[in-house]
Amino acid sequence: MMKTIEGGVTAAKGFTASGTHCGIRKNTSKNDLSLIVSECEASAAAVYTTNLVKGAPLTVTKEHISNGRARAVICNSGNANTCNADGIEIAEGMAQLVADSLGISADDVVVASTGVIGQPLSLEPIKAGMPELVSKLSSDGGHEAALGIMTTDTVSKEVAVEFTAGGRTCRIGGIAKGSGMIHPNMATMLVFITTDAAIAPEMLQKALSGDIANTFNMISIDGDTSTNDMVTVLANGMAGNDEITAEGEDFTAFMTALNTVTVSLCRMIAGDGEGATKLLECRVSGAETLDTAKTVAKSVICSSLLKAAMFGADANWGRVLCAIGYSGADVDVNKIDVSFKSAKGEILVCKDGAGVDFNEEKAKEILLEKEIEISVALNSGEYSSTAWGCDLTYDYVKINGDYRT
Amino acid sequence: MMKTIEGGVTAAKGFTASGTHCGIRKNTSKNDLSLIVSECEASAAAVYTTNLVKGAPLTVTKEHISNGRARAVICNSGNANTCNADGIEIAEGMAQLVADSLGISADDVVVASTGVIGQPLSLEPIKAGMPELVSKLSSDGGHEAALGIMTTDTVSKEVAVEFTAGGRTCRIGGIAKGSGMIHPNMATMLVFITTDAAIAPEMLQKALSGDIANTFNMISIDGDTSTNDMVTVLANGMAGNDEITAEGEDFTAFMTALNTVTVSLCRMIAGDGEGATKLLECRVSGAETLDTAKTVAKSVICSSLLKAAMFGADANWGRVLCAIGYSGADVDVNKIDVSFKSAKGEILVCKDGAGVDFNEEKAKEILLEKEIEISVALNSGEYSSTAWGCDLTYDYVKINGDYRT
Repeated sequence: MMKTIEGGVTAAKGFTASGTHCGIRKNTSKNDLSLIVSECEASAAAVYTTNLVKGAPLTVTKEHISNGRARAVICNSGNANTCNADGIEIAEGMAQLVADSLGISADDVVVASTGVIGQPLSLEPIKAGMPELVSKLSSDGGHEAALGIMTTDTVSKEVAVEFTAGGRTCRIGGIAKGSGMIHPNMATMLVFITTDAAIAPEMLQKALSGDIANTFNMISIDGDTSTNDMVTVLANGMAGNDEITAEGEDFTAFMTALNTVTVSLCRMIAGDGEGATKLLECRVSGAETLDTAKTVAKSVICSSLLKAAMFGADANWGRVLCAIGYSGADVDVNKIDVSFKSAKGEILVCKDGAGVDFNEEKAKEILLEKEIEISVALNSGEYSSTAWGCDLTYDYVKINGDYRT
Repeated sequence: MMKTIEGGVTAAKGFTASGTHCGIRKNTSKNDLSLIVSECEASAAAVYTTNLVKGAPLTVTKEHISNGRARAVICNSGNANTCNADGIEIAEGMAQLVADSLGISADDVVVASTGVIGQPLSLEPIKAGMPELVSKLSSDGGHEAALGIMTTDTVSKEVAVEFTAGGRTCRIGGIAKGSGMIHPNMATMLVFITTDAAIAPEMLQKALSGDIANTFNMISIDGDTSTNDMVTVLANGMAGNDEITAEGEDFTAFMTALNTVTVSLCRMIAGDGEGATKLLECRVSGAETLDTAKTVAKSVICSSLLKAAMFGADANWGRVLCAIGYSGADVDVNKIDVSFKSAKGEILVCKDGAGVDFNEEKAKEILLEKEIEISVALNSGEYSSTAWGCDLTYDYVKINGDYRT
């Protein structure tokens, strides 16, 4: 029994959030600072980018949640605080500002930043914005916080669900920012998830690490793994369920709810990729191993040529085969079937690794939709996997041709 | 003593070539069929794509030159003859048509195709075009052949040099086609090289395999490894030098000449990448291992974000650091220096892994040029490597959004 509810990152009991424009960005109509706070100490878990170049906030966050506990998240957009000589000091300063304002320990603050790499980030605007940020904290504040972490995102990304664990109604929700430099590896973009379920830190970390392998790590917008990717979950236990301390029915219920939230955010992130006009979902089935299924799905979703073809609503399935062929996965090319699917129907374009006659007009109609599924049947085993991405458009080039100015 | 000469693939003694429009393409003003012929049997070597999906012509060529010998190359554009049920039959048919026309063995014919994947290729137009193709064979025909293998290339790609081996003047030259689906792995796009140097097949293969690791395998246009990539060299020995059968002075002279030809073609291919306005050259120095140098250079040149920034002449060096960080290479990020360089000068933008103050106007001036060098000093060792690529532009999206029609 699970249902989607409103409220995003503040849907769970005991969480408040807010967002404001503090002046890191020149555009005063856009929030650039967000705060999420739990009423009581929460179990905390996180996963981080595998990029060797890591944003300073990640180093600080890792240290702060090393005891499995946290109370608050602060995040700015407009500046990644990465490759700056004073990065750690600034990130620590952000945590201290939150600690001072809320009367909590700086060690309980998760710090995140997103935006341009290699430009000094000043504490001044953050300090100046702190009073407003704190005064705006509210259990309806999830949306304002979602706005504050956006960069080139065109829509805010929020979701929440209600589920049952230990006989209690629990809630889990989250917010995310996409939109470019997205090709996660062990972690992803910025995602903040909150839940009122009671769960021990080690089980929370286990749930998160297990989940991202099939969700955030299966998205690619542009093949670039960011320096600042991070997903965090805070679980404050206010739902009153018995703390989840081991695998079992409650843990499974929690994992399922978490997965609903993360898949939903994945689709939002992919569909709002920089310049994107379409969400692409590649579903691979019949793989001999899970690894093969994932490798093939990611290779297809990452192909610039296929992404451009999807932008043009062109059923150029040869590019799907090509991307499977160079993926590095060990597959029997002569067994592969490919079809394209959307709200307008489904069309088989390749059978046993070779082209089939198909109606080009029907294919066009299917591919003109906003959500396209690329189905790849490997017909060699039982494993399947899904990857998410978007089309490659003029606007991606436009956005990234002059991002800094 | 080496000098650049005219003549491309027909610069070497005893080679003739031609190109014609036979009707595979609708556009009658564009050659779509090329032929290269050696007066006598030649040593032959080739490298092929590592894509599991392989064009039928590659399978046929591999078989034909398994004895280290060949006499002719036939290549069509407009259709890749890949993922077609009758592909092998058609590729064999092309070789047989050449054999019948020239009175040679079909086993001595290299076959190549480039164009759309998964559309049946008919022998009819090729058969119909053969008489004209053969009658036009000429020692000035290199340019016509270069035109016949082009797809979305905007310029033909030809080069030749003269060098000395065994006291004799030798020549080596080649033609290439780029332009999209280029991210070679052990082989590359289509490149046909001819030389009148006498060299044993196994030494020719050794020279070629050694060379491409630092040349064609270091180009990336869009991260897509084609199904039809192939580089072949024919060496007919007509320069009269003592056959090169082992390493030594002559082999070194041959390798150097070959490398001049291949680097030159690499730069032409990268600079004429689909939609490209700029040639990007990433020079990595100071790496602890050659592998690290190559991995870093390729990662930088493949970054969609950096490619888009270069299109916008935006000195967004954070994207260079980011691409190094996710490359998988083991580097000390805090030792990295980055500078941008062109005919307008050079500018240091990152020192010891952090940004330095630089003149944005000067950077813009440098980056507005057509050939940009991205210099990465890892300051950790003695190895260096160069990779070539191009910027990501609106036209790449346009060309690939509707390639088939």
